[in-house]
Amino acid sequence: MAGFTEATAVSDGTAQLDPQWTVGGRPNGGYLLAVLARAAVSAAHPHPLSASAVYLSPPSPGPAAVAVETLRDGRSFAQARVRLTQEGRTCVEALFTLGDLAAAGEPQFVAAAPAPVAPRDTLTRTPVEPPGAGIRITMLEMVDQRIDLAAPGDLRGWLSFADDTPFDPFSLLYAVDAFPPATFTLGSSGWTPTLELTAYVRALPAPGPLRVRQYARMVTDSQLDQVCEVWDADDRVVAQATQLAIHRKR
Amino acid sequence: MAGFTEATAVSDGTAQLDPQWTVGGRPNGGYLLAVLARAAVSAAHPHPLSASAVYLSPPSPGPAAVAVETLRDGRSFAQARVRLTQEGRTCVEALFTLGDLAAAGEPQFVAAAPAPVAPRDTLTRTPVEPPGAGIRITMLEMVDQRIDLAAPGDLRGWLSFADDTPFDPFSLLYAVDAFPPATFTLGSSGWTPTLELTAYVRALPAPGPLRVRQYARMVTDSQLDQVCEVWDADDRVVAQATQLAIHRKR
Repeated sequence: MAGFTEATAVSDGTAQLDPQWTVGGRPNGGYLLAVLARAAVSAAHPHPLSASAVYLSPPSPGPAAVAVETLRDGRSFAQARVRLTQEGRTCVEALFTLGDLAAAGEPQFVAAAPAPVAPRDTLTRTPVEPPGAGIRITMLEMVDQRIDLAAPGDLRGWLSFADDTPFDPFSLLYAVDAFPPATFTLGSSGWTPTLELTAYVRALPAPGPLRVRQYARMVTDSQLDQVCEVWDADDRVVAQATQLAIHRKR
Repeated sequence: MAGFTEATAVSDGTAQLDPQWTVGGRPNGGYLLAVLARAAVSAAHPHPLSASAVYLSPPSPGPAAVAVETLRDGRSFAQARVRLTQEGRTCVEALFTLGDLAAAGEPQFVAAAPAPVAPRDTLTRTPVEPPGAGIRITMLEMVDQRIDLAAPGDLRGWLSFADDTPFDPFSLLYAVDAFPPATFTLGSSGWTPTLELTAYVRALPAPGPLRVRQYARMVTDSQLDQVCEVWDADDRVVAQATQLAIHRKR
């Protein structure tokens, strides 16, 4: 996964935020969460299990400082706080639980069957400049996203890397924030900046396109929440997320 | 709400963790989140809108230090990090979005209808020492909790203060972590310590008992997630939460 892995690398506490993973010129929130996760993991705890971020101020592409504070370092789990700053401004802060998904074990009970989605070959790839969006979604050059407008407030579809790179626990953090806001199906095309995003990575994903469902539960005049669930090609729940966002009508 | 409000007060950076709000002698995670929220709010931003905590080490009843760092202080929203420590040990750290729920506005779209629950008067109040639980749930002296075993992995029921104190945005943070783990309905009665809990408070609750639904989406050998949704007496979604917990079979 050269593209995404390189674009999320953190070296000596510095990330180079990639202009490729942007929407309207700003780095995507899930991409930023993956950058923070890359800084947080260790050999003993190689994967993000939970990631909870507050988005404070949108960074620009370019260098950003990433600082990690370990809060707990146990045998099975570690927990850490990670802060991304740019030119002295804190842009994102997140709390992580870290562990090894190879040790997550087999599902004993699953109540989250894959959402029905139209077959992938019957849907069209979302263009980088969707008609009417009024914004350039540069990251769509890198991913093949196909949307199925399942129901009002309920977006479903398929997501894969354009070069078929398999997903990993870091790019799953991107997947949970990749789709357009569910308000897109409610006649409200305004910007919905994320206040808080929490993602759980539940399993190592099998190769192949992901099925994604993103739905709003309550939209008010000022805020909305969205739930995102992601299944891999083996029909397994691999990521779950929830976000609270500002709702600005346009 | 003398009981809960007093028990969650933070004065000069110190909370007195109340032995009343414990399970097996340890403060409940939702109660702790309410303590942190009390420290985070301000006159301009009086309510928690989002709260995301990692649980590092369970504190004991008694004094604990609560430190707040403001991350963003905007007109409509503030964001803050709060850390609870006891005897130099960090026990809980959480990120908050703060605002004014009176300004949250009216719902425009709601996909989260109240879960069907058996009528409250047909259910019995959970005792402080439930048969077979092997643990004293001291906090159940303070709340009237009535459980409806809706389906495997899906707990529903009613929650109110025993003295009918109305809920507020702080006690809603307790409500989302008050119920037994949904694994309780799956024949697994073990302890499920929370790794991460994220709650959104969506509206000021109307007086009266809350309806609560808590369900697991995937339980593995080592972890489970739970979603909690809370409706007030006016059938309005007032709180939403998700948690990732350790799953230890017993």
